[in-house]
Amino acid sequence: MNSTKTVSFIGAGNVATHLAKALYKNKFLIKQVFSKSFTNANSLAKKVNAQPIDLLTQLSPNAEIYIIAVPDDAIEKVLKQFPFKNKLVVHTSGSVGVDVFSKNGFSNFGIFYPLQTFSKNKIVDFTKVPFCLEANTKTNLKSIEAVAKYLSDKIYPINSEQRQLLHLAAVFACNFSNNMYQIAFEICNQHQIDFDILKPLIKETASKIEKYNPLEVQTGPAKRNDKKTIQKHLSLLENQKNYQEIYRLITESIVQSLVHKS
Amino acid sequence: MNSTKTVSFIGAGNVATHLAKALYKNKFLIKQVFSKSFTNANSLAKKVNAQPIDLLTQLSPNAEIYIIAVPDDAIEKVLKQFPFKNKLVVHTSGSVGVDVFSKNGFSNFGIFYPLQTFSKNKIVDFTKVPFCLEANTKTNLKSIEAVAKYLSDKIYPINSEQRQLLHLAAVFACNFSNNMYQIAFEICNQHQIDFDILKPLIKETASKIEKYNPLEVQTGPAKRNDKKTIQKHLSLLENQKNYQEIYRLITESIVQSLVHKS
Repeated sequence: MNSTKTVSFIGAGNVATHLAKALYKNKFLIKQVFSKSFTNANSLAKKVNAQPIDLLTQLSPNAEIYIIAVPDDAIEKVLKQFPFKNKLVVHTSGSVGVDVFSKNGFSNFGIFYPLQTFSKNKIVDFTKVPFCLEANTKTNLKSIEAVAKYLSDKIYPINSEQRQLLHLAAVFACNFSNNMYQIAFEICNQHQIDFDILKPLIKETASKIEKYNPLEVQTGPAKRNDKKTIQKHLSLLENQKNYQEIYRLITESIVQSLVHKS
Repeated sequence: MNSTKTVSFIGAGNVATHLAKALYKNKFLIKQVFSKSFTNANSLAKKVNAQPIDLLTQLSPNAEIYIIAVPDDAIEKVLKQFPFKNKLVVHTSGSVGVDVFSKNGFSNFGIFYPLQTFSKNKIVDFTKVPFCLEANTKTNLKSIEAVAKYLSDKIYPINSEQRQLLHLAAVFACNFSNNMYQIAFEICNQHQIDFDILKPLIKETASKIEKYNPLEVQTGPAKRNDKKTIQKHLSLLENQKNYQEIYRLITESIVQSLVHKS
């Protein structure tokens, strides 16, 4: 193996694009980019000096690693048509188990999961993105790690069961906290209050996690068990029963978390 | 009125300390610092070259503005003992209405509410802190604004009803999102997963709010209405019924928010 690493991409969406560009920048040779849509394959291939293909039978065997970055429910379809069962193949999904490879007759495989949300036009600083890796052998793990280390210092070996739970935790930490922002946004909107007022507080709350456990920095009426304010808030939500119920449940959750602490 | 402004503080806790130090730095004259505990009064007074006092009867009438920064339930007690009913007096609370002043016979009053969480040892960059202001007259509002403008560009006139709703919105956006971090932290902890893996994602989720409405950047299984993953997650929470219930409710809330959008 010489120092230039050769990678091919199956998929040309957000994750594939961000990863391929980052690897290309790090002197990787991007051999081919596959997409069902030749236009999409070509659009990414041009950026990373690769060959665009729209049939998996056109895949060259001359890549060291094949990175499958397609929607979760398309992974198995790709694997069934994949022409080489002995090459090192990885997928980038947080929730699809590693057994999808063995089930389909592969002998060298793994997971290459960058835990971050990727938006099309926003540049990703991969040095800050955690990579959760898994492979079927130590040698394959080393090969995958070697690629990830070019992009990030944050490499975590995570098995499929843990990755599933990590994905669940991410739903709470990110998707659900974003819904809390959304509810706050609506309350502001309904009452002609500028949502911008809350932005510095949202930022500060998230940045405290850097140094402290969330329990240590919990604040607010639930934390103080300030029943007068809690009651006032519940009555302000009288006409939005679903938000009232969320307020009640999470307040209870905060009270309980503090009981368990003490 | 000359260009030096004179302010006295009632209270010597986190908010008083951060505000007094910031005003002192901006060439304000801090006349007196009151605290029930002389030690606390003295500790802050030393830092801002003020006179420490522990009796409200010792208050000098020679300040232009009196800033009451004490716990919510102590504000009324302070007002009842306050020796000057005609001086401009403000409190810094998010949830105590402005009527607490009129009820207690004051004729010049207002609210000086910096919307941020203050931790004892963390330096506060006030230039990024929104100040929510209210006063009983235009002249008093102008006087309070003049003080706030030394500290921050973000000045918002907010009446007491709006401030109450803003406080409710802040509970969702900050206290509740922190509880979401806490649940994620627990899930990681229970399964020997390093919580650090989620930190960049938490940061990115919060920073998206800067440019986008929360609804636009909602991601995850609820957003995609991915019933298979939602069902898997609910079954992973089978032994934690309270978290299962929160998962169910917020998933429903996200689905609903997207229905209303389309």
